[in-house]
Amino acid sequence: MITTKQWIYRRQPTGQITTDHYELVEQALDTTLADGEVLIASRYFSVDPYMRIGQSSKPTYDTDPHPLNTVQQSGVVAQVLASNAPGFAEGDWVQSYTGWQTHARVHASALKRIDPDLAPVTTALGVLGMPGRTAWFGLTESGKPHAGEVVVVSGAAGAVGSLVVQFAKRHGARVLGIAGGLAKCNWVRDTLGADWAIDYKAFNNAEALGAEIKRLTGGVDVYFDNVGGMVTDAIIPLINRRARIVICGQISQYSGGLETPELGPRLLHHMLYQRATIQGMLARDYLHRMDEMIRIVGPWVKAGEIVFEETVIDGFEQLPSALNSLFTGDHRGKLLVKA
Amino acid sequence: MITTKQWIYRRQPTGQITTDHYELVEQALDTTLADGEVLIASRYFSVDPYMRIGQSSKPTYDTDPHPLNTVQQSGVVAQVLASNAPGFAEGDWVQSYTGWQTHARVHASALKRIDPDLAPVTTALGVLGMPGRTAWFGLTESGKPHAGEVVVVSGAAGAVGSLVVQFAKRHGARVLGIAGGLAKCNWVRDTLGADWAIDYKAFNNAEALGAEIKRLTGGVDVYFDNVGGMVTDAIIPLINRRARIVICGQISQYSGGLETPELGPRLLHHMLYQRATIQGMLARDYLHRMDEMIRIVGPWVKAGEIVFEETVIDGFEQLPSALNSLFTGDHRGKLLVKA
Repeated sequence: MITTKQWIYRRQPTGQITTDHYELVEQALDTTLADGEVLIASRYFSVDPYMRIGQSSKPTYDTDPHPLNTVQQSGVVAQVLASNAPGFAEGDWVQSYTGWQTHARVHASALKRIDPDLAPVTTALGVLGMPGRTAWFGLTESGKPHAGEVVVVSGAAGAVGSLVVQFAKRHGARVLGIAGGLAKCNWVRDTLGADWAIDYKAFNNAEALGAEIKRLTGGVDVYFDNVGGMVTDAIIPLINRRARIVICGQISQYSGGLETPELGPRLLHHMLYQRATIQGMLARDYLHRMDEMIRIVGPWVKAGEIVFEETVIDGFEQLPSALNSLFTGDHRGKLLVKA
Repeated sequence: MITTKQWIYRRQPTGQITTDHYELVEQALDTTLADGEVLIASRYFSVDPYMRIGQSSKPTYDTDPHPLNTVQQSGVVAQVLASNAPGFAEGDWVQSYTGWQTHARVHASALKRIDPDLAPVTTALGVLGMPGRTAWFGLTESGKPHAGEVVVVSGAAGAVGSLVVQFAKRHGARVLGIAGGLAKCNWVRDTLGADWAIDYKAFNNAEALGAEIKRLTGGVDVYFDNVGGMVTDAIIPLINRRARIVICGQISQYSGGLETPELGPRLLHHMLYQRATIQGMLARDYLHRMDEMIRIVGPWVKAGEIVFEETVIDGFEQLPSALNSLFTGDHRGKLLVKA
């Protein structure tokens, strides 16, 4: 028997997430391992915007919301404490989907080995994990950028957006990153290598923001959207012929707008004029194609050619507030919580 | 010298089109034909929703709006009065883009011969012309319906929509047509063969309309949108996984909403959940592929297997009011004006 700490999801938020919606409990965990089972200790927890979507009372990517009174689901980087499964030994690094709990007993088939020699183990939750997969396949399969085209990325300082900026540059595109605040914008331009960066918070409305985007880029061929709302309103009227708009996230809408949609200008007529495409994408559709991405992106990461900043918050107790800070915070790149 | 009557486009409308925006003039036309020229007499004029888009003060599918103080552009079915071009003789039926004028002198290269034995000559402006091309390629290239899928068509009683309903049925889809008024709906279901028809005017809001669409169809695989606005708001939350939304028209928005966009609920997050696609299409992109469509649809028309109702308004003087009635009227199928 050991004690595992768990964050239990108790109540659906209507706006922002607080500790009111979670409860921290301690639970006795039987460490007796059945055949094929492994005991793991969680080292890093992922917090991701999709978690807030799963708390919507309406059907989203799953028919039902995240079940109440269960451990908050999330990706985890863990170490093996004890193993009754071939191929897993004490001390091995693994990725699991055991959520916000410090320890868990899981079947080996639910674990994925992490090679700590390829890159830091935390990258399994970032550039070599779900966010990297989202950025790579969202850009290549839906965005389809070409050399010389203009790619605009909203949420450009985020876990996914910061990778899309770099991947788009490698395709030979001219890249505009949009982020909140001057510090993030400087980082997007100077460190990630975007051609331009715009602080959307410096603009009062979509027209003014759009005028600046138009001035810099002349028009938009690929819009990789993590944000929605006013930023998207500014960009849709600027799309070029055959533009591709990738809906990867709509983070501005998650804390309430999924239940009662916010109002915005009707802009679908622009799709008609430019014969443009809007495509929604989810990382899960490309899970079986991780090898394709790792084959290309893995060597770039190993060679130190990709910036994959991580903001690591210390303390299991910080998980709900860390999740909420995705929607309000100043972090750059991937946000993680260390056990 | 003969006299040609012309409708000159004089003033940009801000709302609905009236005769204030046009002037009827008579013009002397020199009938001396240069090498390769043909003199034509217009018999049927097309009125199409795209004409109102071209009057928007903002860039739409063309960078500039329809030029003021010129003849209103439109497709025309005409007869040759005199020819100085090989291959064209007096009495021949031709299609031209000479607009709202009773006579014109044009180079033969701007004319397309119409075969009156294949189908009534007016079909060159309907099922075997631009509306048919829009319906066929919009459905097959962007909608990509499969047998057993649910296809929803807005503006289902219109020139394009009425064909999309029938083409979708031939693909083996289950088809819901949405139109304004019970009479149109009965025609869509009983004559065109839709599985269901809904009168959107019987619903006060998108939620109520959506509930009825959901009840009938269970969910939407292809949405062929000619209308936009509340109808589209009702459907987007009902899309199935990998749904394809074809933006062919947004007629509810043309009389003002293009300048100052109407507000509507932000619904792009649904694209994400269902990994769905919105694609804008224009008939002009398929002009060079008319042979593909004629090869398939031509025999259906000749065999009387396609309903292509035409509403023919008598009198050149009626053109501006006929155009406006596209946005307010009770016509079914293709609206034409007879010289």
